[in-house]
Amino acid sequence: MSRVVKLAVIPGDGIGPEVVAEAEKVLDTVTAEAGVRFEKTRFSLGAARFLETGDTLTDDDLASIAQHDAILLGAVGGMPGDPRLKDANIERGLLLKLRFALDHYVNLRPSRLYPGVPGPLANPGDVDFVVVREGTEGPYVGNGGSIRTGTPHEVANETSVNTAYGIERVVRFAFTQAQARRKKLTLVHKTNVLVHAGGMWKRIVDEVASEHPEVAVDYLHVDAATIFLVTNPGRFDVIVTDNLFGDILTDLAGAVTGGIGLAASGNINPDGAFPSMFEPVHGSAPDIAGQQIADPTAAILSVALLLDHLGLGDAAARVTRAAREDIESRDGSTRTTAQVGDAITARLRA
Amino acid sequence: MSRVVKLAVIPGDGIGPEVVAEAEKVLDTVTAEAGVRFEKTRFSLGAARFLETGDTLTDDDLASIAQHDAILLGAVGGMPGDPRLKDANIERGLLLKLRFALDHYVNLRPSRLYPGVPGPLANPGDVDFVVVREGTEGPYVGNGGSIRTGTPHEVANETSVNTAYGIERVVRFAFTQAQARRKKLTLVHKTNVLVHAGGMWKRIVDEVASEHPEVAVDYLHVDAATIFLVTNPGRFDVIVTDNLFGDILTDLAGAVTGGIGLAASGNINPDGAFPSMFEPVHGSAPDIAGQQIADPTAAILSVALLLDHLGLGDAAARVTRAAREDIESRDGSTRTTAQVGDAITARLRA
Ligand SMILES: CC(C)[C@H](C(=O)O)[C@@H](O)C(=O)O
Ligand SMILES: CC(C)[C@H](C(=O)O)[C@@H](O)C(=O)O
Repeated sequence: MSRVVKLAVIPGDGIGPEVVAEAEKVLDTVTAEAGVRFEKTRFSLGAARFLETGDTLTDDDLASIAQHDAILLGAVGGMPGDPRLKDANIERGLLLKLRFALDHYVNLRPSRLYPGVPGPLANPGDVDFVVVREGTEGPYVGNGGSIRTGTPHEVANETSVNTAYGIERVVRFAFTQAQARRKKLTLVHKTNVLVHAGGMWKRIVDEVASEHPEVAVDYLHVDAATIFLVTNPGRFDVIVTDNLFGDILTDLAGAVTGGIGLAASGNINPDGAFPSMFEPVHGSAPDIAGQQIADPTAAILSVALLLDHLGLGDAAARVTRAAREDIESRDGSTRTTAQVGDAITARLRA
Repeated sequence: MSRVVKLAVIPGDGIGPEVVAEAEKVLDTVTAEAGVRFEKTRFSLGAARFLETGDTLTDDDLASIAQHDAILLGAVGGMPGDPRLKDANIERGLLLKLRFALDHYVNLRPSRLYPGVPGPLANPGDVDFVVVREGTEGPYVGNGGSIRTGTPHEVANETSVNTAYGIERVVRFAFTQAQARRKKLTLVHKTNVLVHAGGMWKRIVDEVASEHPEVAVDYLHVDAATIFLVTNPGRFDVIVTDNLFGDILTDLAGAVTGGIGLAASGNINPDGAFPSMFEPVHGSAPDIAGQQIADPTAAILSVALLLDHLGLGDAAARVTRAAREDIESRDGSTRTTAQVGDAITARLRA
């Protein structure tokens, strides 16, 4: 009797449905062979749904998604500047709501520069690190507000909320990653300015470090970290950082390793209390939607993270290998989104 | 009768005194010829002073500095991890205190890639932009705190405070810069997450933009901005952004344009109510202090910004040209800090 995994699929907006279609091809191929059956439920969510019904994510949507074992998401968000979306914040109301409601306290974003991949750096060296970005705290909590809004006397505050509970759990996860990798962990923050939040991050990293004497730990201010990402990205193994710094560093890291068309991510609840959600780092790119020119590789590599999270490590490794072989064989000629998905699927079958 | 400028000089820690000595050589040379006399007062401030006296910046220091027409600062900060500095936050207590007390609401940081300068990008293209970073608000205000500090139940908050007053004045300055340059202005923020602060930035930029129809305005999320800084830095002319995003972007921009050894900055009070302060973007680098290996170019280019601010545009242009010629003539051979200063001074005299 084969294992059944209940998967919520949120194709989303723009290029989301196109890249998710290819990710599903890969998933279906590898899991059929692994003797696992994925029972999929599709959720129509995003800007398109909002324009149709006025809903971003209802309580019913959320309750129903929460009943699944995992989530695969393409990308959400409408055309920037669309006046009909002026009052909709799809990012906050959908993506961040899912991350917070499903307690995705680890946002795992691997960065790897594959041989032959063109990137912006002249001498990148060997690049292979993961960013462990906190996902449920920091400046992302939405604890902001304004007074005298829209007037010359407006004051707008945004509060970053940080807890020892929240930091310790993500720091522990990061040390586990470092332990299984090259045993190096870099905390990134801005302790000289954000002294309270930064001080707590530093204290907790130091505490957990004492339980991992084999892991070498260092610290960088976020501004210095961006310098190293372009001058010596090979120095990093595991970066652990807060929600906002992680957002910034992972886009930069994506660019450095050949573009966010290759960057996968997992929004993970390691405790298993809620389904984890896997998505490419890129957005919905509505300007190129429907043209079959988006690269589905980031979505496909997100499937590998999903499989890994579900304990299907062999299947995950096969997907990563097939994608990697495809990436390394690219010669700059143009392929459609589906052709890339087909090529990776063919490698899986081979 | 020649004009007299009262200049406060804060050499600071680490490589600060070395690079300031070269900046002063250049300043003395160019201003003697311009018929301006600089009356200098030296302030011994920084980690060294703190270790001697326990003071970071006294009210007397501040009052005395405020009496000057401008400030030249090297770099401040002791050896990271020095236990004697554990409870001193030189950055907050000195550098940020000066920026806030002297209402340096514009932090002006030009980024220019000079021909022949080795940088990390394979194909940087033409890079010539300025970042106008807000200097007195945002997450830098120090409105943070924690409860149950040091325990597993600690909660640490950091509040970013943003006012229409504070944003409008820096945005106006940025538009004036854009007007005098290539007439392009990019707002960088994170409006989809920091909706209140970001929304106000967006609104005010839109309002001021209507007074500058010749300036093309666009918007980037901070994460996307870091991508463009490495994939297409030539797209930028003037970037206007908040205190924290500006901190991050300018270090990255410095790296992209050949390293922060070349990056100059001005902490400016455009109203002239307080003296403005000019400093290299780099820090005190205590690990290489006293060895005469630090590059004084960033400090020298900061002198050019200082001269410009004082209305001595010709002298400023001469310093920039001499530094630029020196930069473009570098062949990778090693020179001491003083040799670089001497070479630039010699070009000024030629
Ligand atoms: C869309 C946006 C809210 C999101 C974030 O800031 O986390 C995105 O940039 C990401 O990194 O997944
Ligand atoms: C030293 C530090 C407080 C400072 C800042 O964050 O502004 C520095 O990084 C800078 O950019 O001048």
